Amino acid sequence: MNRIITIGREFGSGGREFGRRLSETLGIAYYDQEIISEIAKRTEMSEQYVRSIVEHKPQISFPIHVGRSFYPTAMPVFDQSMTVYQEQSRIITEMAQKSDCVIVGRCADYILKEYEPFRVFIYADLESRMKRCREKAPEEEKMTDKELKQHILGIDRKRAKYYEFYTGHKWGDRLNFDLCINTSRTKIKEIVPVMSKLF
Amino acid sequence: MNRIITIGREFGSGGREFGRRLSETLGIAYYDQEIISEIAKRTEMSEQYVRSIVEHKPQISFPIHVGRSFYPTAMPVFDQSMTVYQEQSRIITEMAQKSDCVIVGRCADYILKEYEPFRVFIYADLESRMKRCREKAPEEEKMTDKELKQHILGIDRKRAKYYEFYTGHKWGDRLNFDLCINTSRTKIKEIVPVMSKLF
Repeated sequence: MNRIITIGREFGSGGREFGRRLSETLGIAYYDQEIISEIAKRTEMSEQYVRSIVEHKPQISFPIHVGRSFYPTAMPVFDQSMTVYQEQSRIITEMAQKSDCVIVGRCADYILKEYEPFRVFIYADLESRMKRCREKAPEEEKMTDKELKQHILGIDRKRAKYYEFYTGHKWGDRLNFDLCINTSRTKIKEIVPVMSKLF
Repeated sequence: MNRIITIGREFGSGGREFGRRLSETLGIAYYDQEIISEIAKRTEMSEQYVRSIVEHKPQISFPIHVGRSFYPTAMPVFDQSMTVYQEQSRIITEMAQKSDCVIVGRCADYILKEYEPFRVFIYADLESRMKRCREKAPEEEKMTDKELKQHILGIDRKRAKYYEFYTGHKWGDRLNFDLCINTSRTKIKEIVPVMSKLF
């Protein structure tokens, strides 16, 4: 069975950086945005629309333009969300079957549970997440501290709703992970070489 | 500043084994029951009585025999609990100042916060904690599954109350730890050599 490492993460905690560095250290595949692109390709929806679906609780999305075509308005939005989720599950399973890999987000820990992935959760205190966001995304510098805080917590709330909707489990519950790493006081590039020896 | 590693743990998750193995691998001091013995020595209370205090929320203890002497009944139990906690804080701080060390339990992560310890939390699902308890403590084999489950959860509840009473923080909250390790599917003796490279 392939080595599968799934990364759940709080927004701004460096989960993506951890996953990318880990895949580079181990010399294995890394999947993150690639999943969205692949869903878009297979469903003929636009990447932007797929992203809007997976970043929200299904019912609240409303499709306007979908890839090259317009979906009939009679088609419930819920069905589209389910289509995207099912396609996502298929793609993630194919990735896991293909080779060793690191998969960031997308309920991969749940979707691949029969493959017994090593499930990592990356988190940090709000202060260091705000700092990381400001460093990584200069365009967000215009936000006040209060706005940035609301932005971060809002994204986490959406992720939690999405995860809970499809898995029935509480997002971020430590029992759903093998290892939870707090990056508030830790340099990711220093811990990855150590952690990579676990796999 | 000395390398200080504190270990919080759910009952039956192997936190003590993790701490002991880690200290052996790193070749540094290990403190666990030693703290209780030292408190007993300094306060002239019996080890058993000190243990009964630190394993319960302060107010509910009632002292009968205390070391070699009887405390005057007018002395509030609460005062004794505070005495034990203060002595414990002093001893843990002395230990941290003396040399590199691993300290299990005893609110050490909070008491030593100014020393910036590396704070580990060990946890596991209930099934594997029950299995570990049965393996480690044959005398508990007489308990039914239901009784053992209640025993494990009861000890965790007491630890949570004790921790929250003295620190004001929620016991087991991941933000109070740098690393949380789920031992349900992991062999402690295999991960300790890897984790020891973090320090």
